[in-house]
Amino acid sequence: MKAVRVHGYKQDPSIDDIPEPKLQGPLDVIVKIGAAGVCRTDLHIVDGDWADIQNPDLPYVIGHENAGWVHEVGDAVTNVKVGDTVILHPQPSCGQCLACRAGRDMQCTGDAFFPGLSNNDGGMAEYMRTTARACVKLNPDTKPADVAALADAGLTAYHAVRKAVPYLYPGTTAVVQGAGGLGHIGIQALAALTATKIIVVDKNPAALELAKQIGADETVVADGNQVAAVQDLTGGGATVVFDYVAEQGAELDAWQMTGPAGYQFNLGYGGEFRAPTLDFVAGEKNIIGNIVGTYNDLAELMVLAQAGKVTLHTVQYRLDQALDALHDLDAGKVRGRAILVP
Amino acid sequence: MKAVRVHGYKQDPSIDDIPEPKLQGPLDVIVKIGAAGVCRTDLHIVDGDWADIQNPDLPYVIGHENAGWVHEVGDAVTNVKVGDTVILHPQPSCGQCLACRAGRDMQCTGDAFFPGLSNNDGGMAEYMRTTARACVKLNPDTKPADVAALADAGLTAYHAVRKAVPYLYPGTTAVVQGAGGLGHIGIQALAALTATKIIVVDKNPAALELAKQIGADETVVADGNQVAAVQDLTGGGATVVFDYVAEQGAELDAWQMTGPAGYQFNLGYGGEFRAPTLDFVAGEKNIIGNIVGTYNDLAELMVLAQAGKVTLHTVQYRLDQALDALHDLDAGKVRGRAILVP
Amino acid sequence: MKAVRVHGYKQDPSIDDIPEPKLQGPLDVIVKIGAAGVCRTDLHIVDGDWADIQNPDLPYVIGHENAGWVHEVGDAVTNVKVGDTVILHPQPSCGQCLACRAGRDMQCTGDAFFPGLSNNDGGMAEYMRTTARACVKLNPDTKPADVAALADAGLTAYHAVRKAVPYLYPGTTAVVQGAGGLGHIGIQALAALTATKIIVVDKNPAALELAKQIGADETVVADGNQVAAVQDLTGGGATVVFDYVAEQGAELDAWQMTGPAGYQFNLGYGGEFRAPTLDFVAGEKNIIGNIVGTYNDLAELMVLAQAGKVTLHTVQYRLDQALDALHDLDAGKVRGRAILVP
Amino acid sequence: MKAVRVHGYKQDPSIDDIPEPKLQGPLDVIVKIGAAGVCRTDLHIVDGDWADIQNPDLPYVIGHENAGWVHEVGDAVTNVKVGDTVILHPQPSCGQCLACRAGRDMQCTGDAFFPGLSNNDGGMAEYMRTTARACVKLNPDTKPADVAALADAGLTAYHAVRKAVPYLYPGTTAVVQGAGGLGHIGIQALAALTATKIIVVDKNPAALELAKQIGADETVVADGNQVAAVQDLTGGGATVVFDYVAEQGAELDAWQMTGPAGYQFNLGYGGEFRAPTLDFVAGEKNIIGNIVGTYNDLAELMVLAQAGKVTLHTVQYRLDQALDALHDLDAGKVRGRAILVP
Repeated sequence: MKAVRVHGYKQDPSIDDIPEPKLQGPLDVIVKIGAAGVCRTDLHIVDGDWADIQNPDLPYVIGHENAGWVHEVGDAVTNVKVGDTVILHPQPSCGQCLACRAGRDMQCTGDAFFPGLSNNDGGMAEYMRTTARACVKLNPDTKPADVAALADAGLTAYHAVRKAVPYLYPGTTAVVQGAGGLGHIGIQALAALTATKIIVVDKNPAALELAKQIGADETVVADGNQVAAVQDLTGGGATVVFDYVAEQGAELDAWQMTGPAGYQFNLGYGGEFRAPTLDFVAGEKNIIGNIVGTYNDLAELMVLAQAGKVTLHTVQYRLDQALDALHDLDAGKVRGRAILVP
Repeated sequence: MKAVRVHGYKQDPSIDDIPEPKLQGPLDVIVKIGAAGVCRTDLHIVDGDWADIQNPDLPYVIGHENAGWVHEVGDAVTNVKVGDTVILHPQPSCGQCLACRAGRDMQCTGDAFFPGLSNNDGGMAEYMRTTARACVKLNPDTKPADVAALADAGLTAYHAVRKAVPYLYPGTTAVVQGAGGLGHIGIQALAALTATKIIVVDKNPAALELAKQIGADETVVADGNQVAAVQDLTGGGATVVFDYVAEQGAELDAWQMTGPAGYQFNLGYGGEFRAPTLDFVAGEKNIIGNIVGTYNDLAELMVLAQAGKVTLHTVQYRLDQALDALHDLDAGKVRGRAILVP
Repeated sequence: MKAVRVHGYKQDPSIDDIPEPKLQGPLDVIVKIGAAGVCRTDLHIVDGDWADIQNPDLPYVIGHENAGWVHEVGDAVTNVKVGDTVILHPQPSCGQCLACRAGRDMQCTGDAFFPGLSNNDGGMAEYMRTTARACVKLNPDTKPADVAALADAGLTAYHAVRKAVPYLYPGTTAVVQGAGGLGHIGIQALAALTATKIIVVDKNPAALELAKQIGADETVVADGNQVAAVQDLTGGGATVVFDYVAEQGAELDAWQMTGPAGYQFNLGYGGEFRAPTLDFVAGEKNIIGNIVGTYNDLAELMVLAQAGKVTLHTVQYRLDQALDALHDLDAGKVRGRAILVP
Repeated sequence: MKAVRVHGYKQDPSIDDIPEPKLQGPLDVIVKIGAAGVCRTDLHIVDGDWADIQNPDLPYVIGHENAGWVHEVGDAVTNVKVGDTVILHPQPSCGQCLACRAGRDMQCTGDAFFPGLSNNDGGMAEYMRTTARACVKLNPDTKPADVAALADAGLTAYHAVRKAVPYLYPGTTAVVQGAGGLGHIGIQALAALTATKIIVVDKNPAALELAKQIGADETVVADGNQVAAVQDLTGGGATVVFDYVAEQGAELDAWQMTGPAGYQFNLGYGGEFRAPTLDFVAGEKNIIGNIVGTYNDLAELMVLAQAGKVTLHTVQYRLDQALDALHDLDAGKVRGRAILVP
């Protein structure tokens, strides 16, 4: 089968002809890939930024935002059957540790792996091996290309919104800092799950224009006065600030935008957060960390997606155009998300 | 191996010599039984009360409160290994449905089973087949006989207390109606997890005496004036009433003991609950249903047990004395819990 | 001033000329009434159904769904000032007991009262006395007639939805049994605060038609097969059932419509609830009682109303047409809510 | 009456003879002081550290940890009456803003004040003016000196523990960094409200010794290896770390002691917190800010105190020995808390 493989860092992957993956355990599932999202993380992988962290044996197949159809299942698989349309949680978890048993998949202390990132082949290929615990069954007529990019980026944004729901009752305010790929999902999820007032902050006026169409109540151009603007719109700070940027000072702005007893939800990364410990005490302010969501978060997000409440703008490339997709993404030429299809 | 099998209803089980169980799937675990609790439910099974509900093929082995040592494991088992001391959750769940993925094992919509109750051999035997999802690993030196009876009865009581913790802050009151096997665990769990005032109601003064030793702040003899006594002690009704009786009028008493905006936790069964719908509205009162706990509840209960915060009074019988144990239980001669040991 | 007063039960109230109310305490507020809802409870009061419960001295002014403008304030009032547009929580609470200090106004154990129902004049008059603790400040341009009926009926529906939010994530199902005045607010609140699938059950096809326009995903005619229909639509029972009917068997239907580990929210009353205690245990099912909401619930509901997310259909009558309004309501001639305006 | 007044910063207060306070509003309460805690904050006030923040007119009476007996009440006071034994919440709140109505007293946006710290006389005097909203009624036989120091320091520690209860189920671990005045209350509150494993970290072996007596399961000397020691004891980081130190590097140690998906509760202050934003994402770690507790928190803490579950070591001084108490505190000569009594 065809597959996009990294042979060395700081060089283009190549499209190789390799054997199809095989079942290795009773819970394994082979998925015929219908769509694989092309993510900025893939560019970082190619650049070698993840080499030390995940240390995969090269060459290996990238692609961690995948959807398709079940092709083959191990003996112990009960939740999906051959032919089912599925989206894949990016990290198949062990299912047997206490974290898994509590539904906290990302804190799995067992043998979880992350195809396309850890030492396991990902989904920029015709077929991919994962496990039953990654497979969320979709309506048969769902198009993989419409949802694949929700498997990782979208899931992260949804997870954070889901955790914030208890704080965001009517009369509260939520700031979304960074209206890019994740932020757009976050805005839609906020509009679907809450009646809070949504304020979106971004440097890019076009992104803010789109934000308004998908649920933003107010928008603020990040022109250096964004903290003051948010303070004004919120009467002294927001109830929750979702920081999808978290670098170049945004991580410090987020804290200033967070009101008394409010919550800064960290999703982006890159910068260093700094604040006097007195800030936490006097203002009773909080910071909440967020990683990609759980299996059930993904199932819930698919309910929203299939109901049309969360949508993605996508640009499709054929699998054999994968390098074009990566180059376009790197050059900032992709509007919305790039998706590889067979 | 020796096993206690039901061959027909309304007749004594017999102790048979049958083949040892074998692994049937990759997640299966064979456990060498170190202790099996003898439960009132076993008497009901023998009487045929569960025949229509679970419809097992006869003969089959009873025993659903089990602890012991891992004897053999399937290929996909990662949480325990041969030789581990374990207690067994009574219902191995599928691990792949949405309920399992949320940690709500008892709402499993997959292929869960209940050895000793459903059409699967239980633990009154030398060995038993369960799955990895039932096995909670214990400290190596834990004695199975000390904890086995916590696997079902104790787990139910703990589960209810765990759900009630948010309501039972200092200054609140909790009533435990029925200080039998479950109630005693409930009292100990309340004392371990909360600082609420614990009021225990029972017909039996000896049971109340024991209740005082294990955490009750107040005791009330159920002599017909128990509702008024609880109203006095609580200033108009308790915050939470745990009803372990739920028959012969106790289920209606519980409601009268529950204060405004309070919670009646149902654990026992047998009677019919009745109340004007106006009661729920005017008093904003609630009823919470409770079944046996989750896998993680059992793991938590074992932390308490191994720390000595929850203890059981037990009477041990050898496996080949199983009929004596059942007869003694039926005759009301067992103080604490009867436990079969090898 | 003019006021609608009950002089005796089972006879029409009369419109009397009485002195304006005066401040009696430092937290008192005199409100110039802009709108007073005419509620079915008013008919019950006139019929004497509440005589024994609240025991007011006759004659007294009815009207417990009020909005208007602040006319005069006591010395200790800080949250509103003369001229403010306000809606009034129906039960001014003491503010000093533990329940009030926790925000649970309806469990106030102090000197709360309920104008128009308890021994205190209500709002079917030109002016009314309440306290600062009942006054929720509105945008100056809010029309009292648009919101007054939300003060009691709407607040009850909102309160229940608000409590149910944690259970109603995407993929869940909510049944609204009874699409009348409260039910309609409940449907809109569900649509505003959650992404659950909303199923509305009512005998009246016209009510179901309206339900679809304001947020229902599915509707079911209560023709005797409604339990089966809900079971089908929900795959075995709903996550939450809001029962606004609770009489003539509906209170038992609601229980059958409630799925495993689900919640029946009681809002209506009249019937008697009955169920085997085993139902609560085996299904881990729950019942949640609901009374009118808190002050903050009302403030939140006003955010939704002022944003156009919750709207009421109203028919206006002048204060001196109050008897027409009561007669029309009694005769079933009012579509939506009858509102008295100056 | 006698009162300890600050006339200028960086000089000793003096004990003056001043008029008794008078009722100023209908909710006011005059309290005959039975005990006033001497707190490190009082030393900071005298040093002028709070001058810019609170800007009181000099001279004024210090003392913000007060208990005693109700001496006189305003017309609108209903929760206490003359002669009642009371402890005083340090910040009387307005009771009318949305935060107060939700029970979040410390986020009061109205006319809250903080006697002894804001521009209002405190409790190092024979009498003090506060309001009904600060008065928590005690059992008549409670000795003010036994509880006064719980009014501020103790309340802060309790508040944080109370918020952490949902995270601290059996099997979890809690670290208390800093076993001083607040930490000791925190340890006792943890032991009373949870069954978590309590690990106490402090530089002072004597403080650790006491910690063991009041509930610590493990102790760690802060000798430079405390992070590694905690990592070992917790298997990779604690579920919750309560940081009562938060300066001189402790605020960074706390973060390293916090495990995956864990919570760092900030209570101390002085240092600057710093961490890569990636830490929050990859580990899904959180920081929770904590200020002094609510009125209901204080009522709950008094339940524990009156039940003997939380106790304080105190050293009593007569009011006219206030300077001795302040000097002894400054010199590190006070074991436990210094308390002024009449």
